[in-house]
Amino acid sequence: MAEELSTKWETPLTSEQNPHIKRGRYSHLTQTDKDVLSRIVEGRACTSGKELADANIDWLRIYRGTSPLLLKPKSTWEVSKILGYCHNRNLAVVPQGGNTSLAGGSVPMFDEVIISLKLMDKIISFNNLSGALVCEAGCTLQSLMDFLDAEGYTMPYRIGPKDTCQIGGNMSTNCGGMHVVRYGSRHAAILGLEVVLADGSILDLVTTMKKDNTGYHLKHLFLGAEGTLGIITKVSLECPVKSPSQHMLFIGVPSFQDVLKIFKKAKYDLGEILSAFEVFDETVMKLINKNLKLPNPLSGESPYYMIIATAGSNRRHDDEKMNAFLSQLEKEGAIQNGFKESRAEAMKHLWSYRERIAVALKREGICYKYDITLPHEKFFDVITELRGVLHPNSPCVVGYGHLAEGDIHLNVIMPQLDKEIQEKVEGFLYPWIQNLRGSISSEHGLGIQRRDEIVYSKSPKGVEVMRKVKLTFDPKGILNPYKVLPSWMDSELTQRNLSKL
Amino acid sequence: MAEELSTKWETPLTSEQNPHIKRGRYSHLTQTDKDVLSRIVEGRACTSGKELADANIDWLRIYRGTSPLLLKPKSTWEVSKILGYCHNRNLAVVPQGGNTSLAGGSVPMFDEVIISLKLMDKIISFNNLSGALVCEAGCTLQSLMDFLDAEGYTMPYRIGPKDTCQIGGNMSTNCGGMHVVRYGSRHAAILGLEVVLADGSILDLVTTMKKDNTGYHLKHLFLGAEGTLGIITKVSLECPVKSPSQHMLFIGVPSFQDVLKIFKKAKYDLGEILSAFEVFDETVMKLINKNLKLPNPLSGESPYYMIIATAGSNRRHDDEKMNAFLSQLEKEGAIQNGFKESRAEAMKHLWSYRERIAVALKREGICYKYDITLPHEKFFDVITELRGVLHPNSPCVVGYGHLAEGDIHLNVIMPQLDKEIQEKVEGFLYPWIQNLRGSISSEHGLGIQRRDEIVYSKSPKGVEVMRKVKLTFDPKGILNPYKVLPSWMDSELTQRNLSKL
Repeated sequence: MAEELSTKWETPLTSEQNPHIKRGRYSHLTQTDKDVLSRIVEGRACTSGKELADANIDWLRIYRGTSPLLLKPKSTWEVSKILGYCHNRNLAVVPQGGNTSLAGGSVPMFDEVIISLKLMDKIISFNNLSGALVCEAGCTLQSLMDFLDAEGYTMPYRIGPKDTCQIGGNMSTNCGGMHVVRYGSRHAAILGLEVVLADGSILDLVTTMKKDNTGYHLKHLFLGAEGTLGIITKVSLECPVKSPSQHMLFIGVPSFQDVLKIFKKAKYDLGEILSAFEVFDETVMKLINKNLKLPNPLSGESPYYMIIATAGSNRRHDDEKMNAFLSQLEKEGAIQNGFKESRAEAMKHLWSYRERIAVALKREGICYKYDITLPHEKFFDVITELRGVLHPNSPCVVGYGHLAEGDIHLNVIMPQLDKEIQEKVEGFLYPWIQNLRGSISSEHGLGIQRRDEIVYSKSPKGVEVMRKVKLTFDPKGILNPYKVLPSWMDSELTQRNLSKL
Repeated sequence: MAEELSTKWETPLTSEQNPHIKRGRYSHLTQTDKDVLSRIVEGRACTSGKELADANIDWLRIYRGTSPLLLKPKSTWEVSKILGYCHNRNLAVVPQGGNTSLAGGSVPMFDEVIISLKLMDKIISFNNLSGALVCEAGCTLQSLMDFLDAEGYTMPYRIGPKDTCQIGGNMSTNCGGMHVVRYGSRHAAILGLEVVLADGSILDLVTTMKKDNTGYHLKHLFLGAEGTLGIITKVSLECPVKSPSQHMLFIGVPSFQDVLKIFKKAKYDLGEILSAFEVFDETVMKLINKNLKLPNPLSGESPYYMIIATAGSNRRHDDEKMNAFLSQLEKEGAIQNGFKESRAEAMKHLWSYRERIAVALKREGICYKYDITLPHEKFFDVITELRGVLHPNSPCVVGYGHLAEGDIHLNVIMPQLDKEIQEKVEGFLYPWIQNLRGSISSEHGLGIQRRDEIVYSKSPKGVEVMRKVKLTFDPKGILNPYKVLPSWMDSELTQRNLSKL
């Protein structure tokens, strides 16, 4: 998918695009700094070429920094030495996992030293009885899925860029994905972390114990902190056993009221085996048909389409549950069309409808992407409202997402960049979300992109407490600056008078 | 159970029992302080009598403080006013929920003002589609269970003192209980919190959204902090739908290797419907028989007994799974005896074997109680090892607990208090747990009782980071002092020179 999404343009420098953001009062990297830091990683430093250029640009090719140094440590000890040195020298750093962030959180804003975790990719231990996996932060999601598969276990989450994204980044962004309805968020599965703090000290919170109430639950603070409080170097998490039985429904639904009715019914009738509950609208289906050349798998058109998946321990039982569920929906008129699929290859094909939506939309034009959480009842209202607001500009507004968590991926598609329409969209959207106490970023985090919009989802007191926590963990502000915390705090967080420290 | 456990003795003052712990440099409560604070809660202050005496003593009647003032606020605003005043005046406070703590965390050490949340018991909202419940901190667990039952939902946890314990306390201690194997820890279900901070400011993190990645996930920091970082006033959590199908197995198992084999098999064969996996040893069964007059429900004796429970959406399917599971265990010789039970009343009776174990042990003598987490493989080794260490003193050493999480309730029962044996037990036990990277407190927290043992489950760096977090949230140290953080930090955390603040 990465390739399909890439464009040929030269990504402008983030700093040029954002002249109001000033570089913090960090030291500038000297030749001596480069030499010392390069020696720590013994030939795994990069100061030029494609690898460095790629590490400076985000996956969506929207953000580009000018870091002159990429370091690839192989151990916690090396990360510790790097941060210890950078802390002493007041050099800013950006930790980088698979660099698949959708909010610019994993690339430098200016000349921050890039610390890539990609070579820390060892699985340290797995307990086949408890399901406790301990591994280094640079393991890709796919490599862990493969490893666990052979052990009869599976990862408790699955997200699109699984070949590239790394578990350290998954934890740092608290990524969501398709199976939150079944296995919960990263907070549910996490057992322990090892984190290198700003000054290079190592905070070892690695445990394989499920229950431990001995003091503050610090590990949760690093989930979703996007590398601004420490660099995650090891992860321990509880993995569920692999379900031998997988089924899927693909259905067309006449109204959003029916979508909600189906959700309620699925909670009761499919209950413990429900593993995904995805919905997209008719415009999305048309763009899939047109831009991916994938025909509607249903015989007729519907305003809404859904994929409902289950994972369970008994194939016959799950099959019966799914058949009964489908036939009841048909009887109640809650669906217009639909079928059940249980063959692995066919299910994979149907999943591609859902997983390649981003590509289908991208081929239609420039997409302004919003990943928001709303109360279930309001899930698609945002589309109708936004279409009303934008009329008569009439860009294409579409939605799809994880209904179980109220997480909608809202896309406004236009033939070209249009700042005026973007301002109109956001001028309506963010206060509207705030009014419903929704979230302006469900899964993607804040990164560079949305940090100033934090006020729409957090109270002023919440932002103030975040500031205090940041200053406690990283008083010099060297860890992933210009991210997560709002830009009006930059002067304090990134430009402190060092004489005070 | 509370009554059955109570004793007639006069609980000694905690401060007299622990002369090495010095009162922090807090102000002493004046008549003016009492008047001002009492006015905030308008007739809901208590300065004498049984209610104040009860609030000064913990549930196990081990810890007793000398607080001269109990306040019962009815709103967040009142809690805020109380803390604002206490912060200004440098008065220490202890928040109190149902006062069912097992580590002394909910009672004063000296003369701290007690803030009881019991009158903040309103359910604020419930969304019957998402299962999001928002309520005040003082709601008892049972009242929430009753409310949800009528809505077709259930609480994601169940613990013994459900009639008394409050959701605010449940969150503050990150309590576990029987169903962690099914619904996860409190970190899995939490959606939001409202917390009053040390200075009286209100941190509103209440949301009903399942996915929200807009900055630090602060709410998790208050789970398990035992009221030392803020007072939880509102809780929002995701509740699962009620399972219409409940089943239970009661089995006798010939060896611990078989217990582990059964656990592994249950993960695969019962998978998504497994809701409890409890085990206790033959000595526990004998004490149940003797002290509760409950006969062994099985026809023969076994070294280990287990209760395996399921909760699911389809009675027939679950029934089939349980029958097949039981008959396979019989065929494989993994059990000596056992039966399935599905009738509500009969299951309730069988649950009483498990739920009243504490009473059965208490009637045998003085119990030294340890609630620890170990790798599954080592779950009962601690009993054998400890018996070896204590021989020839030969106290009765028994164990029971939640095997799915490796959480064992270890009891050393003696005819009378014996400090020498206690020291022998702990001198062996804590380093042994540390060596296995287990937890010295699975569910009960640290409170007063185990705060100095934190070193066995947290690294020095971990304790140091906790200290920094505490100072960030509560620089004057007025929130629940002498708890959670180790006593050697008291001089800094509770006796700071105020001129520096």
